[in-house]
Amino acid sequence: MPVWIDGRPAALLPVTDRGLAYGDGLFETIAVRQGHIALLERHLQRLGEGARRLALPLDLALVRSELLAFAGELGHGVAKLIVTRGDGQRGYAPPADAHCRRILSGNPPPAYPVGHRLDGIRLHPCATRLAEQPLLAGLKHLNRLEQVLARAEWQDPACAEGLMCDSSGRVIEGVFSNLFMVRGGELLTPSLARCGVAGVMRAEILVRAAAAGVATRIGDLDCAELLAADEVFLCNSQYGIWPVVALDCHRWPVGELTRKLQGLLVDLVDA
Amino acid sequence: MPVWIDGRPAALLPVTDRGLAYGDGLFETIAVRQGHIALLERHLQRLGEGARRLALPLDLALVRSELLAFAGELGHGVAKLIVTRGDGQRGYAPPADAHCRRILSGNPPPAYPVGHRLDGIRLHPCATRLAEQPLLAGLKHLNRLEQVLARAEWQDPACAEGLMCDSSGRVIEGVFSNLFMVRGGELLTPSLARCGVAGVMRAEILVRAAAAGVATRIGDLDCAELLAADEVFLCNSQYGIWPVVALDCHRWPVGELTRKLQGLLVDLVDA
Repeated sequence: MPVWIDGRPAALLPVTDRGLAYGDGLFETIAVRQGHIALLERHLQRLGEGARRLALPLDLALVRSELLAFAGELGHGVAKLIVTRGDGQRGYAPPADAHCRRILSGNPPPAYPVGHRLDGIRLHPCATRLAEQPLLAGLKHLNRLEQVLARAEWQDPACAEGLMCDSSGRVIEGVFSNLFMVRGGELLTPSLARCGVAGVMRAEILVRAAAAGVATRIGDLDCAELLAADEVFLCNSQYGIWPVVALDCHRWPVGELTRKLQGLLVDLVDA
Repeated sequence: MPVWIDGRPAALLPVTDRGLAYGDGLFETIAVRQGHIALLERHLQRLGEGARRLALPLDLALVRSELLAFAGELGHGVAKLIVTRGDGQRGYAPPADAHCRRILSGNPPPAYPVGHRLDGIRLHPCATRLAEQPLLAGLKHLNRLEQVLARAEWQDPACAEGLMCDSSGRVIEGVFSNLFMVRGGELLTPSLARCGVAGVMRAEILVRAAAAGVATRIGDLDCAELLAADEVFLCNSQYGIWPVVALDCHRWPVGELTRKLQGLLVDLVDA
């Protein structure tokens, strides 16, 4: 599998990189099908927004051209892009002359059981809460210890994902997915103003659902609303949509709107 | 300046390191004087506590022996130790067979103006708040974007440090220092139960102050209490103690207890 640093094959980076020292950077996990990048513009848009908010001097046109060339070499799989603030001396102050480092790693397509998509999955209720930090909310940055702690909570393969709430008890997302619920025909997804990652598939689903005449709403949602939902599903850029059918002793059916939305994404996801 | 990875001279690490991917690790910034490590046991104790809470399978005896050898080679300066969960595949789940990577980098002694220690420093009031995450509070982990954002708030060299509060408005620490205040002869420092880094110099000051008969207290402290304090100072393992004399238009004197505590630390800090 190919690995590039700054546009050239390389698999080692200096210990002085600020991505290592402070998690001072961003990443994207990008589905590549037959050399074609799914949701390229959405990935670049989120990356650009993250770079703006972290004041990373990132050349997005360069990232785009490197991504396109890398996807051609990878062919079929997952391209993971890490962007850091590059090398730094000791100390938190961002260097005035920072040069962002771009790291691209190829991986095989994820091998999730087909049953996750067809029959739905069970959620582990994570005890790890997401801290509320509006300055970082929505970004796919490199400070991901909360996800590491949450994912380490369960080994039971019967749970394919975990449910994460914020420290105030609002329902936010999965460990590596965004969350949607359906109530009375309306499609709801948690606000990511305080924490959480604004997934590219979440954004795409909101747009395609609205275009198909589905009412959509982003807002604060609590556990009671989750349990009262008619349908619940997760999404991310790799697997598309997984229906959620169980959390502890609660059960949801694989719903009609969930199936319809899966059907609207067939161009983006491996069958 | 020497750089070692896993006990051997090396300055490059694989892009698959989880320290880069997720900030999945810890660090220590260690003062070395004439080959001797200041506060070695406190650094190892904090590192061990962090490894326990993050479930990092770290061999502390190995870290100790590498640190001692590295300090001998460095002689005089700052040894930065980064410990990561080592290499991983894509995905947050910690590998069952993780091998922690130890990275040691040597740096010259910090060249802070002597006036910081003698005359005190001015604090920048950081707008960046610390999110409240009890699972990570106190640890010197690699998720440090809040400190990067806070330190980027000011360039004015007249401010040597910044004051950070948590999202509820409690006073917590400096960007790279811990904070103390004195009120009516009592030495107070903020609780780090929700956020903040439990500095080794903070711990040492609490012990030495108590041994010298000073009443000490750890607790929640707000801005009003800071402004009402008789004395305020910052500390870290590199510079020892800096009196704080200004924050916005507020002024504090360089106090008697601050001077006394500086005197109690002369064995730990370069004159």
